[in-house]
Amino acid sequence: MNSSGEGSCGLPFVSSPSVLLGHGGGGRLTQQLIQEVFRKQFTSTFLKNEHDSAVVPVEKGLIAFTTDTYVVRPIFFPGGDIGKLAIYGTVNDLAMAGARPHYISLGMILEEGFSLEFLQKITQSIQLAALKCEVEIVTGDTKVVERGKGDGIFINTSGLGSISHHLDIQPSRLQKGDAILVSGDLGRHGIAIMAAREGLEFETALESDCAPLSFMVMDLIESGIELHCLRDLTRGGLASALNEIASTAHCEIEVVEEQIPVHILVQGACEILGLDPLYVANEGRMVAFVPEIQALEALERMKRHAVGSGARLIGRVTSDPIHPGRVLIRSRIGILRVLDLLNGEQLPRIC
Amino acid sequence: MNSSGEGSCGLPFVSSPSVLLGHGGGGRLTQQLIQEVFRKQFTSTFLKNEHDSAVVPVEKGLIAFTTDTYVVRPIFFPGGDIGKLAIYGTVNDLAMAGARPHYISLGMILEEGFSLEFLQKITQSIQLAALKCEVEIVTGDTKVVERGKGDGIFINTSGLGSISHHLDIQPSRLQKGDAILVSGDLGRHGIAIMAAREGLEFETALESDCAPLSFMVMDLIESGIELHCLRDLTRGGLASALNEIASTAHCEIEVVEEQIPVHILVQGACEILGLDPLYVANEGRMVAFVPEIQALEALERMKRHAVGSGARLIGRVTSDPIHPGRVLIRSRIGILRVLDLLNGEQLPRIC
Repeated sequence: MNSSGEGSCGLPFVSSPSVLLGHGGGGRLTQQLIQEVFRKQFTSTFLKNEHDSAVVPVEKGLIAFTTDTYVVRPIFFPGGDIGKLAIYGTVNDLAMAGARPHYISLGMILEEGFSLEFLQKITQSIQLAALKCEVEIVTGDTKVVERGKGDGIFINTSGLGSISHHLDIQPSRLQKGDAILVSGDLGRHGIAIMAAREGLEFETALESDCAPLSFMVMDLIESGIELHCLRDLTRGGLASALNEIASTAHCEIEVVEEQIPVHILVQGACEILGLDPLYVANEGRMVAFVPEIQALEALERMKRHAVGSGARLIGRVTSDPIHPGRVLIRSRIGILRVLDLLNGEQLPRIC
Repeated sequence: MNSSGEGSCGLPFVSSPSVLLGHGGGGRLTQQLIQEVFRKQFTSTFLKNEHDSAVVPVEKGLIAFTTDTYVVRPIFFPGGDIGKLAIYGTVNDLAMAGARPHYISLGMILEEGFSLEFLQKITQSIQLAALKCEVEIVTGDTKVVERGKGDGIFINTSGLGSISHHLDIQPSRLQKGDAILVSGDLGRHGIAIMAAREGLEFETALESDCAPLSFMVMDLIESGIELHCLRDLTRGGLASALNEIASTAHCEIEVVEEQIPVHILVQGACEILGLDPLYVANEGRMVAFVPEIQALEALERMKRHAVGSGARLIGRVTSDPIHPGRVLIRSRIGILRVLDLLNGEQLPRIC
């Protein structure tokens, strides 16, 4: 009877250098994968009860709950990898709601034949990133699909964070005159990925900006900055984030092109590749909408953090909107134009 | 500039019958997909703030947090589809911790070219299942991968549930003498999938058992049954679940083969296919470990629910174990043998 249940290979786990279909079958190979790869890195006490759910304590109040799936290619890139990205990305989504991140779930889809060495490296990177962000991997799930039905590895992380302040951080809270701060220069993540993918020459000099924003956000909140809205600048970059916010809030936003920081190497790469850095993805950058009166204090506070050292005031919510829901950009020669949404994307599978 | 951002097809969304790479790009096509497919079904107020996180209220205490990824093939099968499965499966994981399910996150990986009509059908099925289970889809994420790098659709659902009782439901709570109840006959889901996949003749008569177990579990708890451990019988079936529990709890489990309910059509299909129904996946069945003294009361309570109408007492935790951590089965002719874990799986991509 057992023979019908063996994977495509009857060898013990340690002899296989790659993922077998049987690793996803719920039997002994699955148990081995969990014990020999995941449990060696993930040591949360919440994992020890061997349940499909983690049971975790919460305080009465509000919590933030988010999910994100990561399909980035290549899986290892300058400045990061899909595992680190999956932690920082979800931590950042929680931070954008003003939540302190605590618990992360991990759902993996592995393709048959994926390197177990890579899986171990990614798992290690996930655990390091989790330690850095002070979050715990508390529950997980792994599926295996046949060769040609996936692409090595896809990772879903969902996250839970606690909210212990009385700010209501969301687009509808925008006020006329609000200052718009960006936490650093734009486009490094997208260009680092593109460079790694295409083997471009500037590859060595540019790294992804992939980083957790949660400590900086907590600091802003604790120092009394009345954050109206936060958004991390992932897929679609700054331009898409501002458009989404303006549209949801029915406000008009104006930014000043020469105030928007872009590294000279990113600018150069964008010119070569025909991309606009305002639409390129970042994984460690955000915009913050704050009351005008607190703009400089917030900026100074952001600059104390490595992830915010390049923060800049880039624009404001206009006081007498002509086109509510639109984003306007003042060019270097003073012309005001609409900064629109793109239809699709500049760079596929960037996160 | 915008031209570089258009998807592989410049047509507006409504003219495209299938998923484009641009639908995952974070631009206008992504917005359209969200508005025209997801928002038409998912109406939670928590989705309205257009944030990457949902901010939801909780009471002080314990919550259950779980994640599961669904890669089942075919995506539509007798008795269900991947969307319904993704809701019931995660609801059941929460229920197995004794939690009342509340909030669900939805992460999709779509393959370029996937039918938008199928996506709409699946989204509708997700919403119907969520309504039935009284849970809300509160946050989501969609990624698109190139043709040949995925398999139509993969779905991750993570879930949050509240725990309002003082039971500690987990393997370590097993007691010698505990009664083991199974909530219904085994193997329907796996055989329904297999039949749909292979076009077998018994296809019409067998449907997946795919169903939510949460209401039955809440009823058991509210009626005072001291649940020691619960487990839904998904990948690897009853045999794998019992092995995991026995191993974690360092207990010996004995079940009686002729007490274990298996439908005659499932039995027949298993014989034809060379499968053992005890290892075949279910998506609406569980085992419950309860104090011996409450066994009949719990059984009677389970039978009041449609999902528990076929419940049976199938065995117990032995009082004088010879092999702690093992599962023993008494065959129809009275012989006691070890019911072991399989190495891999009988049926790949069953959930």
